[in-house]
This record gives sequence, structure tokens and C-alpha cells, in this order.
Amino acid sequence: MFYFGADYYPEQWPEARWTEDGRLMAEAGFNIVRLAEFAWATMEPEAGRFDFAWLDRAIALLAERGMKVMLGTPTASPPPWLMAGRPELFRVRHDGERVTFGNRREYCPNHPDYHAATRRIVAAMAARYADHPAVIAWQIDNEFGDRCYCPTCIAAFQAWLRQRYDSLDALNHAWGTIFWSHTYSDWDQIPAPAATGGSPNPGLALDYARFMSNSYVAYQRLQLEILHARCPRQPVTHNLMGFNYDQINYFDLVRELDLVSLNYYPRNQWDLSTVVDPAHSALALDTMRGLKRQNFWVTEQQAGQGGWEMLSAAPRPGELRLWAYQSIAHGADAVIFFRWRTARAGTEQYWFGLLDHDARPSRRYAEAKRMGAEIAALGATIAGSSAQPSVALMLSYDSRFAFQIQPHHPQFSYTGHFQELYRAFHRRNLATDVVAPAADLTSYRIVVAPALHVVTPAIAENLVRFVAAGGVLILTQRAGVKDETNLVTDRRPPGLLAELCGVEVEECDALPAEVSNTVEFIAPELAGTPDAEVGVLYEVLHPTTAAVAATYRRDYYAGRPAVTINRYGEGHAIYVGALGRGDLYGPLVEWAVRLTGLPRPPVAAAGVEIVERRQGARRLIFVLNHTEQAQSVGLPGRFTDLLTGAAIAGEAITLAPREVAVLVESAPQA
Amino acid sequence: MFYFGADYYPEQWPEARWTEDGRLMAEAGFNIVRLAEFAWATMEPEAGRFDFAWLDRAIALLAERGMKVMLGTPTASPPPWLMAGRPELFRVRHDGERVTFGNRREYCPNHPDYHAATRRIVAAMAARYADHPAVIAWQIDNEFGDRCYCPTCIAAFQAWLRQRYDSLDALNHAWGTIFWSHTYSDWDQIPAPAATGGSPNPGLALDYARFMSNSYVAYQRLQLEILHARCPRQPVTHNLMGFNYDQINYFDLVRELDLVSLNYYPRNQWDLSTVVDPAHSALALDTMRGLKRQNFWVTEQQAGQGGWEMLSAAPRPGELRLWAYQSIAHGADAVIFFRWRTARAGTEQYWFGLLDHDARPSRRYAEAKRMGAEIAALGATIAGSSAQPSVALMLSYDSRFAFQIQPHHPQFSYTGHFQELYRAFHRRNLATDVVAPAADLTSYRIVVAPALHVVTPAIAENLVRFVAAGGVLILTQRAGVKDETNLVTDRRPPGLLAELCGVEVEECDALPAEVSNTVEFIAPELAGTPDAEVGVLYEVLHPTTAAVAATYRRDYYAGRPAVTINRYGEGHAIYVGALGRGDLYGPLVEWAVRLTGLPRPPVAAAGVEIVERRQGARRLIFVLNHTEQAQSVGLPGRFTDLLTGAAIAGEAITLAPREVAVLVESAPQA
Amino acid sequence: MFYFGADYYPEQWPEARWTEDGRLMAEAGFNIVRLAEFAWATMEPEAGRFDFAWLDRAIALLAERGMKVMLGTPTASPPPWLMAGRPELFRVRHDGERVTFGNRREYCPNHPDYHAATRRIVAAMAARYADHPAVIAWQIDNEFGDRCYCPTCIAAFQAWLRQRYDSLDALNHAWGTIFWSHTYSDWDQIPAPAATGGSPNPGLALDYARFMSNSYVAYQRLQLEILHARCPRQPVTHNLMGFNYDQINYFDLVRELDLVSLNYYPRNQWDLSTVVDPAHSALALDTMRGLKRQNFWVTEQQAGQGGWEMLSAAPRPGELRLWAYQSIAHGADAVIFFRWRTARAGTEQYWFGLLDHDARPSRRYAEAKRMGAEIAALGATIAGSSAQPSVALMLSYDSRFAFQIQPHHPQFSYTGHFQELYRAFHRRNLATDVVAPAADLTSYRIVVAPALHVVTPAIAENLVRFVAAGGVLILTQRAGVKDETNLVTDRRPPGLLAELCGVEVEECDALPAEVSNTVEFIAPELAGTPDAEVGVLYEVLHPTTAAVAATYRRDYYAGRPAVTINRYGEGHAIYVGALGRGDLYGPLVEWAVRLTGLPRPPVAAAGVEIVERRQGARRLIFVLNHTEQAQSVGLPGRFTDLLTGAAIAGEAITLAPREVAVLVESAPQA
Repeated sequence: MFYFGADYYPEQWPEARWTEDGRLMAEAGFNIVRLAEFAWATMEPEAGRFDFAWLDRAIALLAERGMKVMLGTPTASPPPWLMAGRPELFRVRHDGERVTFGNRREYCPNHPDYHAATRRIVAAMAARYADHPAVIAWQIDNEFGDRCYCPTCIAAFQAWLRQRYDSLDALNHAWGTIFWSHTYSDWDQIPAPAATGGSPNPGLALDYARFMSNSYVAYQRLQLEILHARCPRQPVTHNLMGFNYDQINYFDLVRELDLVSLNYYPRNQWDLSTVVDPAHSALALDTMRGLKRQNFWVTEQQAGQGGWEMLSAAPRPGELRLWAYQSIAHGADAVIFFRWRTARAGTEQYWFGLLDHDARPSRRYAEAKRMGAEIAALGATIAGSSAQPSVALMLSYDSRFAFQIQPHHPQFSYTGHFQELYRAFHRRNLATDVVAPAADLTSYRIVVAPALHVVTPAIAENLVRFVAAGGVLILTQRAGVKDETNLVTDRRPPGLLAELCGVEVEECDALPAEVSNTVEFIAPELAGTPDAEVGVLYEVLHPTTAAVAATYRRDYYAGRPAVTINRYGEGHAIYVGALGRGDLYGPLVEWAVRLTGLPRPPVAAAGVEIVERRQGARRLIFVLNHTEQAQSVGLPGRFTDLLTGAAIAGEAITLAPREVAVLVESAPQA
Repeated sequence: MFYFGADYYPEQWPEARWTEDGRLMAEAGFNIVRLAEFAWATMEPEAGRFDFAWLDRAIALLAERGMKVMLGTPTASPPPWLMAGRPELFRVRHDGERVTFGNRREYCPNHPDYHAATRRIVAAMAARYADHPAVIAWQIDNEFGDRCYCPTCIAAFQAWLRQRYDSLDALNHAWGTIFWSHTYSDWDQIPAPAATGGSPNPGLALDYARFMSNSYVAYQRLQLEILHARCPRQPVTHNLMGFNYDQINYFDLVRELDLVSLNYYPRNQWDLSTVVDPAHSALALDTMRGLKRQNFWVTEQQAGQGGWEMLSAAPRPGELRLWAYQSIAHGADAVIFFRWRTARAGTEQYWFGLLDHDARPSRRYAEAKRMGAEIAALGATIAGSSAQPSVALMLSYDSRFAFQIQPHHPQFSYTGHFQELYRAFHRRNLATDVVAPAADLTSYRIVVAPALHVVTPAIAENLVRFVAAGGVLILTQRAGVKDETNLVTDRRPPGLLAELCGVEVEECDALPAEVSNTVEFIAPELAGTPDAEVGVLYEVLHPTTAAVAATYRRDYYAGRPAVTINRYGEGHAIYVGALGRGDLYGPLVEWAVRLTGLPRPPVAAAGVEIVERRQGARRLIFVLNHTEQAQSVGLPGRFTDLLTGAAIAGEAITLAPREVAVLVESAPQA
Repeated sequence: MFYFGADYYPEQWPEARWTEDGRLMAEAGFNIVRLAEFAWATMEPEAGRFDFAWLDRAIALLAERGMKVMLGTPTASPPPWLMAGRPELFRVRHDGERVTFGNRREYCPNHPDYHAATRRIVAAMAARYADHPAVIAWQIDNEFGDRCYCPTCIAAFQAWLRQRYDSLDALNHAWGTIFWSHTYSDWDQIPAPAATGGSPNPGLALDYARFMSNSYVAYQRLQLEILHARCPRQPVTHNLMGFNYDQINYFDLVRELDLVSLNYYPRNQWDLSTVVDPAHSALALDTMRGLKRQNFWVTEQQAGQGGWEMLSAAPRPGELRLWAYQSIAHGADAVIFFRWRTARAGTEQYWFGLLDHDARPSRRYAEAKRMGAEIAALGATIAGSSAQPSVALMLSYDSRFAFQIQPHHPQFSYTGHFQELYRAFHRRNLATDVVAPAADLTSYRIVVAPALHVVTPAIAENLVRFVAAGGVLILTQRAGVKDETNLVTDRRPPGLLAELCGVEVEECDALPAEVSNTVEFIAPELAGTPDAEVGVLYEVLHPTTAAVAATYRRDYYAGRPAVTINRYGEGHAIYVGALGRGDLYGPLVEWAVRLTGLPRPPVAAAGVEIVERRQGARRLIFVLNHTEQAQSVGLPGRFTDLLTGAAIAGEAITLAPREVAVLVESAPQA
């Protein structure tokens, strides 16, 4: 079953309006509505007194029209009666300031009293709705995140460290606290790496990042255990924030969940730029699908401008539907628009829903409704289909956290670098999973591990095994520099991966952003490839067993290797010491494809995505025109266009600006 | 009587010097001196012990030379004996930090102990000087401002809210606290919108802005009551900071005052730019005149560079006198230079007076002295004259505060937008009052309400009445979006003004500053007007009864209306959905003038102001050349040049750079 | 004896490695190693329990190979057992936030408990190593600095003020506290000038800057007294941070030390620019030599990239050796590379040593080793030689602190201005000392006092005496504006120097950085000199007895003097009212040289330094090619090249890029 619907806050509107809302939803083809998120004060107006009658009525009204309900636990926004006069329940920010009441996500995730209040409301909701036939899923809290540096967390961190290291000697050794006399002689001396402490010990800071990530995992588990115990038939999810969010290890967060969900807004007030990059959304979506290597839900699909204090650019006509189809193309099994009606009150007055403040259906509602009709026809064909990528990008939260602590360069960003590498595949319509360093890699032919900074023996073995068995691995600069406790390796980088790559890094130059260098491709397989521009970080490589693929053209390392390739077992390891963009990564990706013999998908104009889901052996092809021009796309094979019903047998199809085609293969491929 | 003088701090200099200072003041033609501001520690060296002897002597010395005295209460800078060891008397900043001693304006305006100390010093001063023949006016405190977020203020806010809303249900409804579970169940749960709380509920934040504004009004009242009771013959004022200051509702602040006063510095260390914009000063001055719709005093007219840590650009020769005449032209009945002698000590060492640190009369003193002689001749002609504008610009502090909370766009500023609209009138020498939303508008022909975001039924009725009776109203984007409690209206914007304007706003696009659009004027009355460039915010309009005046040329709303005009009753309402500058507003202003049949004043080169005051039926014309070039100006009618004595009968007059002419009409007009 | 070595932290590495480290050091020609800095937790693992056995072994191992040891006291990084749970021992930052544990330099320099702990560890070290034959010197703490604003410091400040001013009346008068009612009636009312207090009283702020500087001087004395008493044969130093560090009066700090030491890093993460300016290092070095007017040690000579969170650019091949020779050329008698081996742990993981993380000798080790061999040959010739400059630049910490409080202009910097004036001499290879305002100036022919803002009668007399006796003095804008307590002088600037200069400053214009003016040299002696560009600050000068040397070309002071020269006694005082760069200062420096008849040293291409040390009457010439091109240099006289052994008799020598020549004069000059 494919789910299509909206997020709805009936408690914020007069009950007299609900019927009309329900009618409009049904008319738009909705079969799911998310409810109750942020409604703590309404469900529990004072400690221990519950009122679910309004929610019962809202569910009933929707259920009558055939809609199912997903319930959110409301713990992202505690009511005043819980928080007022209790500063210890509030987070302390990195700068040392205690948060005060007035927004959401104020809470310290480790405070036992907050845990107790959480258990009470979640247990009450679970008891009420476990057996409700219309309630088909749960969402815990909303968009977990934000590190806390309060005394409660510091004490919990000390206890967590005691579990992890057992002895202070082990901890002192692991962090190298002898540096600057930080040797701890009592667990309770250990601080949090708040800004007031200045540049911290990297080992302590990495462990704190892990601890805070784990604190949210543990806080989620507290709710999950109640829901799993009481509501075994209803899957439980949490709504994540895509690829860019970097404060929680999402692999850990989703492990015990039944389902991954995504909130994603291509246009929002924090990025006023007019250009919406489809590769950016695509990476968010592929990351969500990769987290559990299964399809996911979109709990918040953009329904209008996204603004708090600032307005975002308005989604252009056609964009909302286009983006919703992009979600589906990349693995969404549910699309829920956020939100139904634009709130008249509160911080999110300008975070627009499908209906305007005045309740009028907007042009955005019309778009959703058009799509609702399409989904009614398509849903059964899509449901159950999935992507089957041969390429994996390895996302290491340990490395990401390590670069937060020591970014290396003002213009280097793990996130941005990852995005650039992703883009090289995306541009070629090569489907990718985003996977954890410990992931089973046997189904992949190419693995890319961008800036894999923190490497453990297990990770190294995983990669060695992959390459030895015939895979092509692409590693980039700063790989293998750090061990699990954020010590610099005592081998030449890439450390535990040096033998696999047949290369050693002699040094890593760092130059201002306005300077650049050029690399020349000298591998015979890359003959004729134009030079690529590189910048910011420049590793000087010393090949041991590797062959040189590209060299620097300038500076004191002119002629020295910038990229190498090493034959290892049945496979190849490509090491990229220079930081580049498409002109560097594009040729390397194509080389990797040639080395593996993978088929090359059709490629259309820039801004046109061709994405595949498989329904058993049958291919479903989504063609998405993100541009403002009409685009023609030629696809080998015979298809039926599910939106128009047209048969396509080799001839190019033409898509209007921001238009979509969903094609199903006429005959399954071998 | 026209007052001309300086601000003087005799307590900061050896008494032996006072006589020479008095002599130089008299020689410069001064008839007023402001004293005692900031002299708390000198007048009350310890709690309850007063020393006014020095002040008596200073006043006597000035009075002997024929000068009158304005006294300032010293409460803007409390002495150490009052503040030391009393952190609760200090303000808490928006970021949550408590201010410490060392500057001025440290105090929390709501603390009862500060109030008590204030009453003591003000009562002592009032008792001493109520009957002093030389003391002719009082100034309370100095430049009120700066919001406080301390516990005292939070408690006072809660009490203020209880008065305003009576019940928590009413408050929760008015603010829409159901959003994110902010429903308050006890008054003492309500927080201040400090930065530690993140983006606040807009209703709470707007009420806090009003409450803090009211706190200063109430603190001023505390002093005013003492002064009014004890010194009934001496008018009381407070020195305000012109148009740009945006933390206090100045209409509220001046309501109970006898007189409005202005401090204004075209050149200061916070704006190092070399270009001094006469339209900027003019708006400050017109705002001051508009506050009570009566003439005002300039308590601080720039006397030299303005600097604390940084030096400002030096006022160019002629500028001080030019600016002083600009003050008079726009309605000043007193010009008091700040300050007499440049302080050798303290934070304001580089905020220059007429005398240098070494007591030598500077070129600036020479300029003031020249003007003193002129004023001796002119004063009687000027005194009692006033401006009589037919245009009003509506200044809504509620809207201004609402945009502080939700600015909509990094490049949108209520203040800057207001200035741009003002400039279109100023450039055409069309005199304007700056008035409150509730002002009686019957004397105006054109009313402009820039970005009138918060609209109450009373405001809407005021505007409807104005237009129905034949006025021309110009409204701009984001009008009528919010109600009194900062909820978004449940009608299409401009909400309560939609019928008056005959238009509805479908959406408001927001694009980066580097993007722009163009509007084409299509109203027949604007035929031939060149296209105007617009940017930042773009409303898409749907006319109901209005005619389309201009349309967008690009983007998905190309061809859709950007400006409309609606005939309503006897008048017209122009709605401007696009944010522009002179090329947009100029044609609209000229259209409005044509619609009303108002006479068009003469216009000279850019940078040359022609400003009128009326003495009964006789016109006084001030011609101010703000440019660095000589400028010729032709004026219809017959005048006498009061500075040169020349008779002018139709021929152009030529002004040297930074020169001024003050013309009096030879024969009164009908 | 010339010392050459490295900073070594044996406690951070397995003892098994020490022997190999010692071998490599000896092989590199090291004769000194610095130890124990930051090793508090290792030497005193708990309060009062000491462990020096490891240090004994490390020293012994080095001594066996003929190396001497310098010991650092470890007080820059207190161990957790001392600091945990004791917030009052931590500094409070300028913004009012208390520092927390996690980096170094956390401590409040005035806390008695920190003093007590300091005494205990220093006394224990002194007792242990006073008589150790290998231990030849001590370094106290590391890089003193960072002001504290805690209650302990505020109370100490109040006590310090009581000593300084004796009475509150005197203090109130000295600071001019009557301004804004800051009159203190009790010592304990006096605050620190923290950011929460806003722009402070300049007198209070300057005294606080002095007090904090003195606090570190006093804290250093506490250690110095113990070391001097117990270890009389071992000289004691502290490692300073060159010219740019501006929080401590270094003249005060070094007064009681036996030796000045420098840490200096031309490439570091806080300045990513690729251009390394040799004039910048040269000023740092000349400042260190000037502090006590004796040679100094470099305790930290850059050994690789300098990075904490960010990587610096890698030192280019040859740079480390070049910079080390530059240190020697300017007066270093010891060069100690920081550090031996790059730390695997802690904040400074990317602050590279001569060995990489993996212990492999890097190309940087090879450079040091090459130099070690050279030093073995050169050392005896160099040792005991010194510079004998005829030019002094006067560094006034009082003025520097005063500009921190009131910078005058966002683009004006005392430090940058000083550097520009220094550059004019450096470019001409004119050797300079950097001296204090009270320095004995009799050995100099030219004295430059950049922006000598704070002038006391004693300083004025010192300068008058110098000029009267025939010296040439160059003063620049804002000289003599302030007295000792940061009051503005009650005379026209340059105040106490006005008669000496024969000039008065009428005003000081300040314009935005994008504006500029031009000065025309009109003195006959400067005929033909091209115009110079000036900006930011523009003083308008009124000569009393001086002649005009240059005038402004534009603005309202066009034609008015910008530079003057005054004959006074046997000498000349040049006053420069305009702020310029090389095109302004170069001609003035050359004029000053002509006026004094000083010989003009040879000058090579830009980026090539020619620096002299004298060994008795014999000249040692260091020629340093800082450029990336080969450079030819012609030197009059006959020399032996100490590195190549070649004899040079008038022919030009050619230096490869980043190459060095050390020449010794064949026959001593007269």
C-alpha cells in the first residue's frame, strides 16, 4: 500500500472546521494523516490528567473517510507545566548558556524527570491507541538533535565513559591526556567539551559527540520499548532530517526502529538561494534508504514556503509534485505533506501548508490533489518496489564528528565533500546506497568512502575484503588518519588502509581558498582527460605498490602523485589525495565503472534525473525534469507511461518543465 | 522665543573656567543652556545627601549673562553608591547576560528600588528649582531605551498580561499557544522572549516589546508626575533619538510630555560613511514634529565629530550650521548644540563639542557664533511658525515590533522601507507629517502607510474613513497580515483592508537580494513611465474591485498585478505589492498628488531642500544646499532673504555649497 | 656557546623510543633540549606527591649524548586534580563567561590557591634540578597572557588601585569619573571593564590593562624568586610571543628575567595566507632583542605546519632553515625547534614537529640536520656577536592598550601601523632596536615613535633630550593625545611634544577605508618625490615653529600640512599627521638618514634581507633570500662565506631560492 496524505493539527483549529478539512483531504486522494505531534499540552493539560477525546473524534472523522492515522508522540515540545521553574530540565548550549522556555526541543535528553514525564504520556497514548484500527503507525518525538552540556549530561557522560573504558588508565591512554597535563585521576573530573573550555582534546570531544548521539538513541529507546510492548502491530518510526544533519549517528538511531522517515524541505528560510539542487535532495533520500537498506516514508514533504522569521522563496508551480515524485523515485513508500493548513499562530506562521491561513485551498493544494489522483492509479504498481544499487557511498559519523572537532580548513566540509562525490554518480544516474562503515558490502561493485578519517581495524578489514573480492574502492584525502579514539595513527596515512591502497601520505598541504592547483591525469586509461582543478587540501602521495593515476602540476609537489590506483586481490583501490569537484571525480567514477563492467545508465541533460525502482524483475523508471525548460530523454527498451498511458518503444519522450514521467517496463529484463 | 544654546557640564571643569565659558556663550548669542544631565553623583554624592550649591552657582553665572536653563534629571547614569553590589538593579540583555557597571543606561526600568532612588533625586531637584526664574524647562533622563529581560521585568510582564488579558484562556487564545504545546496554565509560567528561548511565539514577543516600551513610559511618568506637581510652569520633555530608534513606541512616550525633543547626529562613529543623507535627517525631524503634531526642540544638535571608541568623519565646514538650519526648517523651536566643550574624560572623549579639549574655540564654535548672530535677527520671525503638511506617513510601532520578531527577509527592513517611501516625498519637497495609526487624518490629502503589518479594526476604520472622504491612501506589501496579537489574519491579506483596496494577496514570494524583477506600469494615467525594478519581497495580487496599475514582467507571476488602485468612496487606495525604490514610488507619489490636486512645490537639484514653515498666513522658506556645489534655485513669488536682506522677485537665487537661505514671503498668500 | 636543539616531550612517548630519539637528535647536531613544559600531571600526579624519576632518566639519556637541558615549569596547564570542582581558579573572559577545563591557560593569575600550587611544584623542581650539571636554564610557564575579569581579580585590582592612587579623590580625578556619574565613593565599587559593562571609562580600562599585565609579571615573579633563590647558576627565561602579542607589557615582563625567549611561527592556522612576510618575523625578532637590549633565545622555532583545528600551509622546502637563520641574524643565541615529534594526541595534533606522528624523520628533520652540521661549524663564530643599531622604534604598551580601548577607526591598528613604519627601515636593511619609551636613547641617531598616544612628562623629556642632542625623531598621528591616566591632554596635540615638534593638531578627520587622500612633498629636500597615498586618519596640522614637509591635495584641508619638520636643538623632529604606507614613510626614512649622516647599508631585491651581527669589531653578514627566485647580491668589502668557505671580494653572490649566506668580514673595519 502506498500512503499519501498530510500532517494535520486539528487541535489548532475550531472543531467545526474539521469536517470540511476531512472532505478536502479525501478529495485530494489522501489515505493517511499524521496527528498529535506537538499536542502534549492538549493531551495532558496537567501532570497525569489526560484528554484524548478530541483526538478520538479527529481520528474517527478521518477514518470515516477511509484515511489511516499515524500518531506522533509529543515529546519534542513539553508543556509549560512540566518545564516552568525547572531550569535543570533544559539543555545547556555549547556556549554554556542554559536554554529557556519558548520554542521546542528545549529539553536535556538525559534528565530522569524528563524521562519520567515522557514515559507517562507515551504509555497513556500507547494504551489508548494500540488497538485502534485506524492507527497504523507511530512516530517518536520530532527531529531529534542538539547537544546538551549540562551537569546532568556531564555526569551521564562520566558514567558512559566508565562503561566504555573501564579504567581511567585506559581512558587517559586512549585520549592521550598526558598532553597538556589533562590526566584524569577521578571520573568526576572529566568535563564536557563546551566552548568555554576552548579547543578540546580530540578524543574527549569525539566521545562526547558519540555520547550525545547515544543519549538521543537511548531516549528514543525509552519510548520505543513502551510502544513495541503495547502496540506490536503498529510500526514505529522517527522523522529524520536527511543527509545534512550531523549531530546524531543516524545508523544508530534507526537500528531499533521499524521504519525510517524523512522531513525534507528543498526551499526553506535558512537557504534563500533560488537554485534547488536535485542532487541535494537525492542524497538526502538515498541516505534515508541506505540507513536500514529499505524503503522509507516521507513524514514531511514540502507543502509551501518554509519560514520562521524569514520567508523562503515560494515553491515554483510544479515543484511540490516534482519533489514528491523524486521522493518516491528514490524509495519513499509514503508521502505526507507538511502541513495541511498554515498555522495562524506560533513560530511557524510562515511555514506554509496546502491550505492558506484563511483555509482556502491554494495552488499547492491543487498540485497535491492532482498527484493524489495519480497515486490512486500508480500506488499499487509502486508499492513493494525498491532500488538495487551497485554503488555504495560510505557515511562515517565518527569521521564526520572528528571533522567537526578539527575541520582542517575553513573551506573543507565533510558534508560538502561527500555531496560532491555523490554528485558525480547522480549526474550519471548511477544509483547509490549510503551505508555505514560496517555495512555488508557484498552486493556492491563500487564503494566510495569520502574522507574516511576514523578507521578501525574492523572497517579496514571490511574494505580489504571488498576489494580483494573484486570491488573498486575510492578513498579520498585524510582517510585513515585517526583511530577509534581520535588519536592520529602511528602509521603513515592512510594508516590501516595504506597497504590496501599501496600508498603513503607524506604530508597534507593546506592553502587558502583563492589558491588552486591542477592535476594532470597520467594513467593510460585516463589518457585525454582534461586537467582538473583542485584546492584547499593537497596531499603529497608516495606510492608503495600503487600506480600513479594523476599528478600535481604546480607548487613544490609538482609532478608528485595526487591520485593513485592499486591492484589488490581481484579489485582496485583508488586513492585521491587532492580535493576536487566534478572534473576530478567524474573521470574517476567513469573509470571505476569501466573497471567493474557495470552497465551505464542513460544520461539526459543536466537537471534531469532518471531513477529506477524494481518491482521484482520489472523496472519502474522515474524521469524527473528539474529544469525550467522542456527536455527530451531517450530510453532503450519498451515502456508504458503510467501517467499518460502512452506506450514508448525507443522514441524519445519529452517532458515539460518540472514534469515527471513514471514508466513501467513492458517486458521484464533478464 | 527661539532658543539657541548648548549643553554644558560645568561640574566636569574647574569652576575658575566657568566665567570664560559664560562669556564665550554670550558672545555666541546663546540664550539657553542645558545642565545637570548625568550629574547624579555630584548632586547626590551619597544616598539622601544633596549638594546643589555648585549648580546654583552655575545657573546664576549663566543667568547673569541673560541665559535661561533647561535642567536634565540624571537618572540615565546612576552613581556607584546606588548600583554597586546590587546586580538586580541592572538590566539583563536579550542574550541573557546581566549588564555590569561602567557605562550608562544600565538600569532595569522596572525595579522598585531604582524607582525609589529616582523619586528621591527628582523630587529634590524639583523642590530646589521649581521656582528658579532662570530654569525654564526640564528634560527627563536621556535617550530611553534598551529592553530588559530580568526576573523583575518578567514578573512585571506577567502582571501586565494579567491586566491585559484577564484570563489565561484569553491569553492562550490570543497568542495561539496551542502551537507547540505552549499553553500556559499559570501566569508565572510565562517567559520573556530572550535569545536563549530561540524563535519565540510571535504574540508573546510582540506583547513583550509593547510591555518594555510601556515600562519606559511608566518610568518616565514616575518622574513626570513629580515635576508636573511641583513645577507646573516649566514644560517637561525627554530627548528622543529620531526615526531610527525602534525599541520604544514614541507616540506613547510623548503623550504625557509637554514637549518633544530630539538628539540627532548625522555624522557618528556607528556610520562612518562620508555621505550624509539629508532625507535621513529630514525624516528624523518630521517624525519628531509628527509625534505630537507640534514643533519640537533639538536638545542635542551635532557640534563636532561623534565618537566613543571610533572617530566619526569630521563635520565639513558649514555642515553644523546647515544641519541646525535644517532642524529649524522642519520645526525646531530650539537648537541646543551638544556639547559645549569636548570632555577630557569618560567614554565620550571623542564626542566633540564646540570647544576643543583644550578649551580653545574651534572652527565649529565660529560656525555656531555666526549662526547665533543670525538667530538674534531671525528668531522673532521664526518663533511661532509651523509646517502644515497635506501628506502623512503612518508609523506603526506594532508593525515595526512585529517585523523585529519576524523580519521576513534579511534585506527587508521596516525602517529602511519607510525611509524609501519618505524619500519620494522629500525629493519633491512635499512636506509630510509622521503620524500614528490612530491619528486624526482629516487634515491630510495623502496618507502613506508603509508595510502596515498589524491592523486592528480601529486602524482599518480610520483608513476607510480617510479614503471614503476623498483621501488617497498608499499601502505597501505585508499590510494587514497580522491582527493585534500578532496572529496571522484569517482573511486573505491585506485582511481588514482588503475591501478598501479591492485586492487580495495570493502569496508573497521572497527571493535573494541579488535577484530582481521589473514592474511595468499599465495604468493609463502612468503611460510612458519607465519600468521600475523591484526585489526581495514580491506579492502576487488578485484584484477584486481594484484596477491594475502595474504588473510583474518576469517569473511565474509575470503579467500578474504588482500594484493596484481602487476607487473607494470619494478617494483612492493604491496597493503596492512589490518592494521597490524611487523608480517605483516616485511615479506613484506623483500620481497621488495629481489625484488630490495638491499644488506641487518647486524642486531643485538633488541635495537641495526647500522647506516651508508658516507664520500665520506668511510663508517662511528655507532653502538648504546640502551639496558640495553651488546651486541655483528659482522660487515663484516675492521674498526677502532674511540673512542677506536682499529682495527676491522671481529671479533664481544661488547658494554656495552647504549654504542656507531663509526667505520670508513679502506679501501673505490668500 | 650557540645552542641548537628541539622541544621534547618524552613523557608522551614510550620510554623504549627515547634512545632512538636521542640518537637522531645527536645526529642532527643538537646540544640543547627543552623538557618538562606542560608535564605537571606527570611530575605531580596528585597534590604534593612528586615523580621526577622519568625526567631524571630522560635528562640522563640526553646528557649522555652531550646535550644540555632547559626545563620548563608546567604551570601553563594545571592538572585536573587541581582544577576540578574549583571554578574560582578559572579565568573569567572579557564577555563575562567563566572558562572551563579542557585546554590550557585556564587559570586566574591572581588566585592565591593557584599561587600556592605553583610554589609547590616550582620549588620541588628547583630543589631537584638546581645542581644538575646538564640543566642549564629554566623557562617559566608558557606564553603568558589572557586577561581575567573574575571577582578575585577585581578585588586585587581594587587593592592595586589603592596602592597606585592612595585616595579615591585622586582616582576619581585621574579617571575623570565625574563623567556619567561614575564617581566612586568606596574602593569596592570599582568594576572590571568587562564587555557586559559596555564602553568603559578609558582611565579605568587602561589601568585594568596595566593591572592585568602586572598580574602576570607578579605571577612570574613568584616563580622567579624560587628559581633565583635555589638555582642561582641557571638563567631563567619566559617564552614570549613576539611583536604582535598585545596583552602584556613585555618590557615589564622581562625586566627581572635573565633572558628573553621567543616562540614564533611564520605559518600557522590563524593566518592561512600563503605569503610569509620576512619583515613580520624581523620585527618580532628585533622586538625580542630590544626588550632587554641583548640577544635572546628562540625557544620555539617553527618545525612544521602549525595547526589545532585547522592546518596551516606547509612550510615550503628550505623555509624552516631560512627562518632559523633569520632568527640568528637578528640576535638569537639559541634556536630550539618546536617540537621534536608531532603529538598523536591532544589539541595540537596538527602542530607538526621534526618527526611525523609515526616517528619517521621528515624532510623537515633533514633540513634541521643539515643546519645542525652548519651550526657545528659556525656556532663559535656567531656566539657572542650582536647587533648595533643606530635606529630605535619606540614601542609604548600604554599607547597600545589605549588604542585597544579606543581604536579610533576600524582600519587603524597600532600594531599594523608600527609594522608599516618598521618595514620602511627593514626594506633598507637599516637595523633597528625596538625600545621602551623610557629607554636610554643616547646610542641612537634616529628614533621613531609610532602613534605615541600616551605621553608622560618623563617620556617627553626623554625625546626632547634625544632631539636636542642631535637626534632625528619621527612622530606620527595621535601622538601626545593622552596623559598617563588616559585623559585627553588639555593642550593641543601632540600635547607635551607640541613644542618639540613645532606643530599643533587642529583636528583629526576619520574617513572610510575606501576613501583616500594624497600628500604632496613640498620640502625642498624631498623635491621630486612622488605623491604618497594616505587614508583612514587625517590630522590637520598647524605649524608653530615647524616647516611644512608635505601637504594634503584634497578635501577641505587641501593645501594644509600633513607632515612637518622642526629644528630643535641639534636635531630634528618630523611629525607625520597622515596615515600612510611605504610611499609616505620611505622618503621620510631616507630623509632622516640623510639628516643624520648614517651610512646606508646595501639593499638587494625585495624579499632579500641583509642583516649584520658584530663580533667585536668584525662584521658577520647574513644574507637571506626569502623569495622563490635566485637572487644576486653585491656587497662592498671582503668576506669569507662560512657555509661554503668561498672568499668574496666585491663580486656579487648569488643565492638560490630560500637560501642563506653567512659571511664574515675578512678584515675588521675601523
